[in-house]
Amino acid sequence: MIAEIIAVGSEMLTPFRQDTNSLALTAELNLLGVQVAFKTVVGDSLEHLTDVARIALSRADIIVFSGGLGPTEDDLTREAAASALGLKLVRVEAIIAGLHERFAARKIPITPNNLRQADVLEGAESLPNANGSAPAQWLDTAFRAPNTETAHRKIVILLPGPPKEQQPIFHDQCVPRLRLLLPQRAIAKRMLRIALAPESQIDARVSPIYKTYPDVETTILFTLGEIQLHFLCAKATLEEAQQRVDELTEKCERELDDLVFSATGESLETVVLLLLGMRHLTLATAESCTGGLVAERLTRVPGSSRTFLGGAVVYADEMKTKFADVPAELIRQHGAVSEEVARALAEGIRRRTGASLGIGITGIAGPGGATLNKPVGRVYLGLADGISVEVKQLDLTGDRERVRWFAAQHALNMLRHKLM
Amino acid sequence: MIAEIIAVGSEMLTPFRQDTNSLALTAELNLLGVQVAFKTVVGDSLEHLTDVARIALSRADIIVFSGGLGPTEDDLTREAAASALGLKLVRVEAIIAGLHERFAARKIPITPNNLRQADVLEGAESLPNANGSAPAQWLDTAFRAPNTETAHRKIVILLPGPPKEQQPIFHDQCVPRLRLLLPQRAIAKRMLRIALAPESQIDARVSPIYKTYPDVETTILFTLGEIQLHFLCAKATLEEAQQRVDELTEKCERELDDLVFSATGESLETVVLLLLGMRHLTLATAESCTGGLVAERLTRVPGSSRTFLGGAVVYADEMKTKFADVPAELIRQHGAVSEEVARALAEGIRRRTGASLGIGITGIAGPGGATLNKPVGRVYLGLADGISVEVKQLDLTGDRERVRWFAAQHALNMLRHKLM
Repeated sequence: MIAEIIAVGSEMLTPFRQDTNSLALTAELNLLGVQVAFKTVVGDSLEHLTDVARIALSRADIIVFSGGLGPTEDDLTREAAASALGLKLVRVEAIIAGLHERFAARKIPITPNNLRQADVLEGAESLPNANGSAPAQWLDTAFRAPNTETAHRKIVILLPGPPKEQQPIFHDQCVPRLRLLLPQRAIAKRMLRIALAPESQIDARVSPIYKTYPDVETTILFTLGEIQLHFLCAKATLEEAQQRVDELTEKCERELDDLVFSATGESLETVVLLLLGMRHLTLATAESCTGGLVAERLTRVPGSSRTFLGGAVVYADEMKTKFADVPAELIRQHGAVSEEVARALAEGIRRRTGASLGIGITGIAGPGGATLNKPVGRVYLGLADGISVEVKQLDLTGDRERVRWFAAQHALNMLRHKLM
Repeated sequence: MIAEIIAVGSEMLTPFRQDTNSLALTAELNLLGVQVAFKTVVGDSLEHLTDVARIALSRADIIVFSGGLGPTEDDLTREAAASALGLKLVRVEAIIAGLHERFAARKIPITPNNLRQADVLEGAESLPNANGSAPAQWLDTAFRAPNTETAHRKIVILLPGPPKEQQPIFHDQCVPRLRLLLPQRAIAKRMLRIALAPESQIDARVSPIYKTYPDVETTILFTLGEIQLHFLCAKATLEEAQQRVDELTEKCERELDDLVFSATGESLETVVLLLLGMRHLTLATAESCTGGLVAERLTRVPGSSRTFLGGAVVYADEMKTKFADVPAELIRQHGAVSEEVARALAEGIRRRTGASLGIGITGIAGPGGATLNKPVGRVYLGLADGISVEVKQLDLTGDRERVRWFAAQHALNMLRHKLM
């Protein structure tokens, strides 16, 4: 069975907004063993929307409409689906009563337009929406296209657009209904997360392994400074699926060794904080070019205060002296962007805060600030543990944002290696 | 003339990746006066892709294919377009020569598959790709659908998928060609940016104004803690278009008054830094619950070091004392999340760094940490200027990320108001 997702709304045909609902819908459908073969974005035009609905009915078994169920004149999904299916819309009294109740509770007057939300496709089930006024619809029907002989079974699902309304309805009310229709299968999933490795190298190392598991779907995802390997397997029983996925995951993990920072989903920040906690260590940071990005990333994690004490954003040179005791003379001699200053920042912030470990970062994020010897992208990282200071020189490419992100990523990864 | 954009690639039918190229393409097309009426995402299947191409030819005047021009067996856009158009593919010697040159320069052996990139639709122009091996294609043709009488003019554009290849080709080679075909029009654009105002209030205030400008396209965009009003007008001359857009922009700006933080596009961070610079003032921050987010946001702006000295991430209580001189007794007495501590943080960091202004932020970002009197989302902001300290209490809703973002947004906006 293949699915088509139709995202309805003129705003998604502007340069400003795009369909994102389809990602969560696709994840749910894939878990049921359904592939999404087409995604269509169409505006609030009855003609276009009906046309798109007709095409979807001709090529997909499951058709999911996302959006266009509101009360305004622009909300035309019900009408378009009815027209493409050759069905009438029936106004359902029970829904009208619910709408009246909802509006009364909110003390808002109900307008005639609002009642359109009670229009349901002939033969469809109305699915209650706990988080909004427009109910969803589920239709399981035998559909015969005009000028054709045979009828085909079609599942047509109409969902409200707002994610907070759509996702619970789809998960709680549509997925169980779909599961009843589809061959039963159990799904196992795993993921490996890798920081800062060259993409081609990772694929070259793991592809000979995952190619021997044709029953496991392997997806390699590249994001900023991170590679994710996703494994998914569907079998008759969960045990069987889990075993295949675990086996492949562990083989890839063994191959990639300490390049893998998480085999259970945690972010790099979380892993670093966990390692610190396990070793009863604390951390402080002194950041120049990253401007607080490492601290900000660590404190995204709830509970980070147990191991991350805090730090200083030492953007101006005097701040390096004031908050991390970097001698002004050292900065004059070597420049603020230097191995020596990174070292002094790391050790200085460690000593000043009483943390077990200190990180110092100084560099040129660009676009300005380059010198003859030090190009944009040059960053020095220091990691102090009270006995010695490890220093690393980076030459990063890309714009300011990328340089800052990669510098922070390298700092966190350097810390992870130290803690392993 | 209406356009359809077809994004080609099975990865965009997974839960992990989506089409984003269409946003930039849509922006360019809109500037030419062309509306995008349909967007379709289709996988690397010749059957599906050909079907999608046929449908696009039946309903759009300009059809833009994005992706599927590479050398692998999965790259089928050329074949599908040819089949839907009823045209042959012609292997072009000049492109083959270029490919040989390109591969020789990189010292990579050329494979037979690579030569498929030299296949061009009969009658199409091949458009050179400065940043990759697959050239784009431009076809201006009279197309007659099977079983129909009349031929229609169709512009078919084949673009490589990677944005760094696609965008310059479209901008430099396709836009000028499209401009020759389309009625000439000049476009003027403006934008107003507003921080932290209730969405409904903004629309209620400006809609009576922009509704009197039906010739200006007004788009209201809601992002995290920011509202953007986009105005676009197309006229025969630029002067005329600019005048209408300026007039509407200024009326809306007058109505919204100091809610507007930028009428020329700058981010809130940039505006704050500009205001500081104009007044020859410097700034330092002491952040607890935001964990460095305000510092990180300010330092995203190149040149921020002229006015932003830096600051402290005072996550642990002792750090508040060490780096911002908050008396330990004050924390014991009122709690770390209190008006008093926010005040002390702001004044302490200001004094310690010698900055003109100091910001202090303390709060409960969640999910843990709430107390009987202080729920998750409670944040205190302090802003010290050396004479007095202004304090603001916030009760924010949402998850940890949202609370942190809004706290930072409020801090920056408080600073902006102070500087105006």
